Amino acid sequence: MSAAIGDQLAWVAVDWGSSNLRAWALDDAGRVLARGEAQRGMLSLAAPQYEAALMAVIEGWLPENASDKGPVEVWVCGMAGARQGWCEAPYRPVPTALGRLNEGAVTPTLANHKLTVRILPGLCQHRDDEGRDFDVMRGEETQLAGLVAREPGFSGLACLPGTHAKWARLEAGRVMSFTTFLTGELYRLLASQSVLAHSLGDDDLDDPEDRAAFIEAVREAAANPAVLGNRLFGLRARDLLDSSLPEGERRGAHLAARLSGLLIGLELAGTAVASETAPVCLIGSDALVERYALALDALDIASRSLSGEEAVLAGLKLARDTNRVA
Amino acid sequence: MSAAIGDQLAWVAVDWGSSNLRAWALDDAGRVLARGEAQRGMLSLAAPQYEAALMAVIEGWLPENASDKGPVEVWVCGMAGARQGWCEAPYRPVPTALGRLNEGAVTPTLANHKLTVRILPGLCQHRDDEGRDFDVMRGEETQLAGLVAREPGFSGLACLPGTHAKWARLEAGRVMSFTTFLTGELYRLLASQSVLAHSLGDDDLDDPEDRAAFIEAVREAAANPAVLGNRLFGLRARDLLDSSLPEGERRGAHLAARLSGLLIGLELAGTAVASETAPVCLIGSDALVERYALALDALDIASRSLSGEEAVLAGLKLARDTNRVA
Repeated sequence: MSAAIGDQLAWVAVDWGSSNLRAWALDDAGRVLARGEAQRGMLSLAAPQYEAALMAVIEGWLPENASDKGPVEVWVCGMAGARQGWCEAPYRPVPTALGRLNEGAVTPTLANHKLTVRILPGLCQHRDDEGRDFDVMRGEETQLAGLVAREPGFSGLACLPGTHAKWARLEAGRVMSFTTFLTGELYRLLASQSVLAHSLGDDDLDDPEDRAAFIEAVREAAANPAVLGNRLFGLRARDLLDSSLPEGERRGAHLAARLSGLLIGLELAGTAVASETAPVCLIGSDALVERYALALDALDIASRSLSGEEAVLAGLKLARDTNRVA
Repeated sequence: MSAAIGDQLAWVAVDWGSSNLRAWALDDAGRVLARGEAQRGMLSLAAPQYEAALMAVIEGWLPENASDKGPVEVWVCGMAGARQGWCEAPYRPVPTALGRLNEGAVTPTLANHKLTVRILPGLCQHRDDEGRDFDVMRGEETQLAGLVAREPGFSGLACLPGTHAKWARLEAGRVMSFTTFLTGELYRLLASQSVLAHSLGDDDLDDPEDRAAFIEAVREAAANPAVLGNRLFGLRARDLLDSSLPEGERRGAHLAARLSGLLIGLELAGTAVASETAPVCLIGSDALVERYALALDALDIASRSLSGEEAVLAGLKLARDTNRVA
């Protein structure tokens, strides 16, 4: 099978995060021939270890007569380009054109001659008088580039939910500004490490009562974000008071759904989404995109979606194609 | 020395929290004869272990001829009265008169005959149409009672900063409503467990730059609470971008002061404090009270203070005195 991949293999795409890497073998038309992944990321790798970590995932894809065809191109985005990563690709300041990320790519020196690796830069933003604040992204810019590859000249608001959710304002294929929210990390900390940890299970937004609790919490936090710190403690109080009621009178508190709704509602209140007329483009995994679409819908805001995997592949392909033309 | 205490000892006051207990030996006029403490609280004790944990701290204070004088009264507030504590003292719902907490006290059965223990109840609040939300307190009600003992008929807003900061609206010595904020716990989680942990040290509000960063952050969060999740990530981004600048151009980010200011500013935005005309009464440790006083001052709100130790002792004394009269 690896021989079959080797014949068709045109290039390799890699999304390399803080804790894991995902790699794709692609043919010249951009079709996925194979996928691989490993739990090795910036937090567990020193710079000299990246090459071996990558080879462990993709070596089986490489053609046996590699030297005849020249090295295989590998295009990488994410934390591999951080200062503490493989090889620093300095942040590009916004506003920046997503079709030109390749101009900021760096090329780490390799021990083997089978590959050429190009690592794309992240984006940074400094505080200014137009409302921008300090911010950084690494990896999400490539997914945004994928949106632009599919819809050249895209203008509008895009959201990438996650541990550090990103909202980006695009104009004609350029990122004008962006805003990161610590929403996913706050959820994880509160659900697992705080006084709430005793009270919370998992939620299931297909369950009508969890869904209703989520929607109510989104609306509550979006309408009155200042009370967040209180509403968080209120989850604990609700649970304490609920469990003191007789079995038949308990309200079924759906606390995990409510916590998620409060934090996403706070995030939405902090974006410019309420004044947006075009649908927000949500980019990410199905489960997170559905959760955010439900939250936006609770505030009467339209959204559409793009798979995170499709976006990152399209973004890396755009960088490669642009680089070949240049 | 313990014999000397034993002669003057009138009663013992105990503030028993989740992780520690503090005890005071008092004479009949309420003067402190001795202090003791132990790192034993609700989280580390099962109900049958409380008596021995208490005796380990206070036994040396008890008169040698205890049987002649009858048992020593011990008045306790805090988590010892929780369902998972020593002996449950059920929450009293607000509105409630702080001068009558003794009516909700419970008496655990003891193995020894040297003591009589009375544990005061906490307060609870159910959601209603007048803006109250689910909430609970255990221990802080006794400090509020201490405020009322010192200023009978007190009306106004009192704040007890801490892991779970409490704001209470009092009218004529009654708690009408209260609101808990997870502020201190959020600070601890974010400073020690989040992506920000790499960036933060300790702050020092006596340092003019830390102080200025704190005040700016309080004002920023109070004015625009919805952006909290973003401003939290912004601390990380600011640190990343700052450390990429040449040494001489770094701005000195004062991130811990800024994080504290953001979280307290969010809390203040969630209270009714902006429309308060009388000074807010802050009850707690010197360091926290000073921090909150500075935050309130940044929003042009006046405050005054009462030491947390004085408050809890006055509150326990009020319960004891009321009980003796009744």
